[in-house]
Amino acid sequence: MSDREIVVGIIGTGRIGQLHTKLLNRFVSGVRVEAVCDVVLESAKKCAGIEGIKKYSDDYNDILGNKDIDAVIICSSTDTHAEMISLAASAGKDIFCEKPISFDVDKIKETLKNVENAGVKLQIGFNRRFDPNFVRVRKSVVNGEVGKLHMVRVTSRDPSPPPVEYIKRSGGLFFDMTIHDFDMVRFITGSEVEEVYASGAVLVDKKIGEAGDIDTAAINLKFKNGALGFIENSRQAVYGYDQRVEAFGSGGMVEADNVQSNTVTVSTAKEL
Amino acid sequence: MSDREIVVGIIGTGRIGQLHTKLLNRFVSGVRVEAVCDVVLESAKKCAGIEGIKKYSDDYNDILGNKDIDAVIICSSTDTHAEMISLAASAGKDIFCEKPISFDVDKIKETLKNVENAGVKLQIGFNRRFDPNFVRVRKSVVNGEVGKLHMVRVTSRDPSPPPVEYIKRSGGLFFDMTIHDFDMVRFITGSEVEEVYASGAVLVDKKIGEAGDIDTAAINLKFKNGALGFIENSRQAVYGYDQRVEAFGSGGMVEADNVQSNTVTVSTAKEL
Amino acid sequence: MSDREIVVGIIGTGRIGQLHTKLLNRFVSGVRVEAVCDVVLESAKKCAGIEGIKKYSDDYNDILGNKDIDAVIICSSTDTHAEMISLAASAGKDIFCEKPISFDVDKIKETLKNVENAGVKLQIGFNRRFDPNFVRVRKSVVNGEVGKLHMVRVTSRDPSPPPVEYIKRSGGLFFDMTIHDFDMVRFITGSEVEEVYASGAVLVDKKIGEAGDIDTAAINLKFKNGALGFIENSRQAVYGYDQRVEAFGSGGMVEADNVQSNTVTVSTAKEL
Amino acid sequence: MSDREIVVGIIGTGRIGQLHTKLLNRFVSGVRVEAVCDVVLESAKKCAGIEGIKKYSDDYNDILGNKDIDAVIICSSTDTHAEMISLAASAGKDIFCEKPISFDVDKIKETLKNVENAGVKLQIGFNRRFDPNFVRVRKSVVNGEVGKLHMVRVTSRDPSPPPVEYIKRSGGLFFDMTIHDFDMVRFITGSEVEEVYASGAVLVDKKIGEAGDIDTAAINLKFKNGALGFIENSRQAVYGYDQRVEAFGSGGMVEADNVQSNTVTVSTAKEL
Repeated sequence: MSDREIVVGIIGTGRIGQLHTKLLNRFVSGVRVEAVCDVVLESAKKCAGIEGIKKYSDDYNDILGNKDIDAVIICSSTDTHAEMISLAASAGKDIFCEKPISFDVDKIKETLKNVENAGVKLQIGFNRRFDPNFVRVRKSVVNGEVGKLHMVRVTSRDPSPPPVEYIKRSGGLFFDMTIHDFDMVRFITGSEVEEVYASGAVLVDKKIGEAGDIDTAAINLKFKNGALGFIENSRQAVYGYDQRVEAFGSGGMVEADNVQSNTVTVSTAKEL
Repeated sequence: MSDREIVVGIIGTGRIGQLHTKLLNRFVSGVRVEAVCDVVLESAKKCAGIEGIKKYSDDYNDILGNKDIDAVIICSSTDTHAEMISLAASAGKDIFCEKPISFDVDKIKETLKNVENAGVKLQIGFNRRFDPNFVRVRKSVVNGEVGKLHMVRVTSRDPSPPPVEYIKRSGGLFFDMTIHDFDMVRFITGSEVEEVYASGAVLVDKKIGEAGDIDTAAINLKFKNGALGFIENSRQAVYGYDQRVEAFGSGGMVEADNVQSNTVTVSTAKEL
Repeated sequence: MSDREIVVGIIGTGRIGQLHTKLLNRFVSGVRVEAVCDVVLESAKKCAGIEGIKKYSDDYNDILGNKDIDAVIICSSTDTHAEMISLAASAGKDIFCEKPISFDVDKIKETLKNVENAGVKLQIGFNRRFDPNFVRVRKSVVNGEVGKLHMVRVTSRDPSPPPVEYIKRSGGLFFDMTIHDFDMVRFITGSEVEEVYASGAVLVDKKIGEAGDIDTAAINLKFKNGALGFIENSRQAVYGYDQRVEAFGSGGMVEADNVQSNTVTVSTAKEL
Repeated sequence: MSDREIVVGIIGTGRIGQLHTKLLNRFVSGVRVEAVCDVVLESAKKCAGIEGIKKYSDDYNDILGNKDIDAVIICSSTDTHAEMISLAASAGKDIFCEKPISFDVDKIKETLKNVENAGVKLQIGFNRRFDPNFVRVRKSVVNGEVGKLHMVRVTSRDPSPPPVEYIKRSGGLFFDMTIHDFDMVRFITGSEVEEVYASGAVLVDKKIGEAGDIDTAAINLKFKNGALGFIENSRQAVYGYDQRVEAFGSGGMVEADNVQSNTVTVSTAKEL
C-alpha cells in the first residue's frame, strides 16, 4: 500500500472529526479524504466545504458502501462506536476509532471479535503513544536502559475540568481520563495489570461529586511482570496540562517532564 | 536557656553516636558535650578521646545522674530506646532519640506518656524535616502557595540495600525506611493518615525476600484533610540516593528534586 | 484591512520561496496567494501546481503589475533584493523580503529611502524575533523585570557549516549568520550598537578559511544605552542548533535556553 | 610526608586568617596549626584562644623561625604578600598565600624567582579550582569529551559590591575580582591568553566610578591554543552569587550552572 494513496472516509464531523479531516487533508502525505458524513447534514457539508472535499452525506452507508474508500475514521458519538466498528469491519474497511469502543466490556470484546473475523486493522485513538517524550521513555524500558522494570508512575492532570454536562455522559473519570493513563502504563511496561487499587475524591468541584463522579484519583497497580505502579489524576492543574511519566528499574530511572511554553528562566531578588 | 550553654550527654557511641558527638562538639555553638557512654567501654573511651571529652563510661547512669547535663542524645540500640527515654525523662533530662522509639505501638504510647508526665522535651531523629528542600515544600503548603492540598507524593529510594543481617533486625522496610516517608507526608500535609493501602515486592534482591522482608513498595494514602497521597520506596537506586517530594493543590504544585553532585551538563553528538 | 483577505504574490520559488508559499497558502488565515513567479518558469509552475495556485510566471512584472496583489514576498537571490524592494515599493506593494537587503550599506540606505518615499510597509525576514523564547526575554527587558539593562549575551551556533560554495557567496560569517544575532541584540536591548570589537578564527573547517571566511567568532558590543554585550558564533555545534540569549540588569537576569527534542532525563549508574 | 602531620603557622588573623585557622584546625586531618601571628597582638591572641592554639605572637619571625613549622599560610594584607613569600621561602617553608602576590608585575616575577630558588612549594588562593562544578568542566576538556576547545566563557557576578573604601585599595575590578576568572580560563583551557580586549562600565554604583574603578566588564580573549573566550563580570547580581562556566569544542559543550539554595520548583496559575 506504500505505492499508492490511502483513501479515507470520515464518520462524524464534530470537533474531533473536523480536526482529523483537516490534518489528513492538509498535512499527511499519501492520504486522500474522499468523503465525510455526519448525522447532521449541515455539519458534514460545512466540513467538506472548508477542506474542498466533494462528497458529503448524512448517511454513513455512503462511506461504508464506497468501494474507493480503504479506511474509515470513526468520530461519531461514543454510543455508536461499537456498531460503527463492526459495520466498517464487515465492509472490509480498516478502522481508526476514537476512544472508548464502548462503556460495556462485553460489547468491547464482541466488537474486537468482529474486527478479528473481518481481518481488518483497528486502531483506537490513544494519541499519547505518539508523544515524543513518552516514546523516549518506552525506548528506555525496551532497550534495557533502566534494566528490569520495578516501578512506573504516570501523573496526568488536565488544566481544567470539562463542563458537568459532559462529565455526566463521560463514563466517569476512570473511563474518560484515566483510560489514557491505563493505556500509557501498558505501553511503557509492555505488561498487563494484574491488581488494581484506586481511591478517588471530589476536591476540585462539588458539582462533579453531585454528578456522581470524582475529580481526583490515586491508583495503585501491580503488573504481570512483577512491577508496581501508580497513576495520579486531577481534573484541574491551574498551572496547565501536566503529563509526566517515570519508569524505574534495576538499571536506573527515566523521566519525561512537562513541555513548557518557553525555555526562559527569570532570576530576580525576590525571596523564594 | 539562650544565654547559656546546653550541656549534653551521649548514650551510645556507635556510628551514629560518634557522628552526633562530633557534630555537637565541633560545629554547634551553644552546646557542650559533657560525657559519653557506651556498653562497650572501649568505644566510649575512643569517642571521648577523639573529641577531647573528659568523661566517659560504660554506664548510662553516669549520664542520667550527672546534674550538669541538661539533655541526652540516645543513640543506643533500638530495643533500648523506650527504656532510655523513660529513664531520661524521669531524670528530668530533655531528650533527642534516634528513630524508632520501639517496634511495639503500645510501648511507644506508654513511653510518650512518661515523657509527657515528666514535662521534658523529646525529639525523634527525623532529620529530613530539616532538609532545605523539604522545608521549602512545606512552606509552600503552609503559606497557601499551592492552595488547598489535593495530593502529596514522596519518592524515596536508597542507593543500595543494607546487609541482609541488618534487614533481619530492622523491623522491615516500612519500619526501617518508610518511617521517614510516613513522617514526611505528615510534615508536608500537616494532617494524619486515615486510610492506607500498601503493596510490596521483592525486586532488588531475593535474599531480602528470604529474610521475610520486601525491597520495593507502593503505598496509597488518604489523609484526614481529604488529600490523597503516594509513597514509593526502593532499597536500590543505582544512580544514587533519590529523595523527592511533590505537593499538589488547588493553587498549584511544588516539587523538590534531587540534589546532584554537580550542576554540570555535557552536550555531545551522541544520539539520545 | 482586518475585514478582508490580504492578497500576496511570491517572487522567487526556490527553497525558501516554496516554504513561504506553502505556509501562507495552508496555515495563515486571512491571506491568499494570488500568483508566484521565478526566473525559472518550471520552478514557478511546479510550486503553483503543488499549492493549487492558478497564476505563475517567469516575469516579476506579472506580480508587480497585478492590481489585486497587496503585498509581495521577495525570495529571489540576494543580489536582486534591493532592486525588487524598490520596484515593489514604486508599485505600491507592501513588502516582506528575506535578509539581507544588500551587501552594500549605501545601497541599503537608498533602498530604505525608496520604501519610505513610497509609504509602504517593509519587513525583513528576521524570524527569530517571533521565537517565543526570545520574545519572552525581550518582555523581561521591556517590562522592567530585569531592571536597567547591563549586559546582553547571544550564543548562536549552527549544527553544521553550509557547503563551502555557499560560504563563498554568503558575504561571510558576520553577514550570513551573525546578522540574526546583531538583530537579536537590537531587539532585546532596544538600543543601537555604538562600539564593536570582533575576533574570529577558523576552528571548524580549514576549507572555510581557504575560502576567505571564518567559522568561529567572539564579538564584544557596547550599546548607546550604556549596556555591554557579547555575541558568540560557531558554524558547528555537534549536539545541534544552539540558540541562547541572556539579559542581565539591575533587577535580575533572564535566560532563554535551547529547546530540546524531548524532556526526558535518564539516570543510570554510569559515572559522570 | 603522608605518614606524619604537616605543621603550619598562620600569618595574619583577620577575617580570612581566622577562617583558615578554623578550617585547618577542625576539619583537615593530617594538619596541625602550631602558631598564629598578627601585627595586632590582640587579634592573634583571640584567634589562638578560640581554637585552643598555644602559641601566638605579633611577630611573624616567631613563625618563620620556628623549626617545627613546615608550612605557612599568609593572610596578611596584600602589600606584605610578596615580602612574606620571599622571607618564608628563604626560611624553607612551603607557602600558601592569598591572592594577589602583588599589584606590581615585576615584583611578582621577582617573588616567584625567590620561591623557585628556595625550592619550596607555593600555592596562591585560587579556591575556585577546587569547586566540584569547575573541576567537572575541566575534566571534560582534559578527557576530550568536548573535543578540541573552540570557546570558553566565564560568567562571574558577585551578589553585591564591596564598600567603596575596599574598592579604592583593591587594585580595581580586574585585579580584585576578574583575577579569579583569568585564573579559571587558564585552568579550563590549559592555555595562556595571547590577546585580550576589555570594555568596562559603571552601571551598578556611581560611587565606584568616582573611586576610579568600574563595576561591570566584558572581556574578549584569544588563547595560544587557538581558542577564543569571554569573561563577563558584575559587582552586583541581585539574585545572588552567579558563577558559571561553559566550554565549547569540536566534540560538544560542557556547562556548569549555578548552585541553588534548594531544588524546589513552584508552579502556579500566575502568568509567566
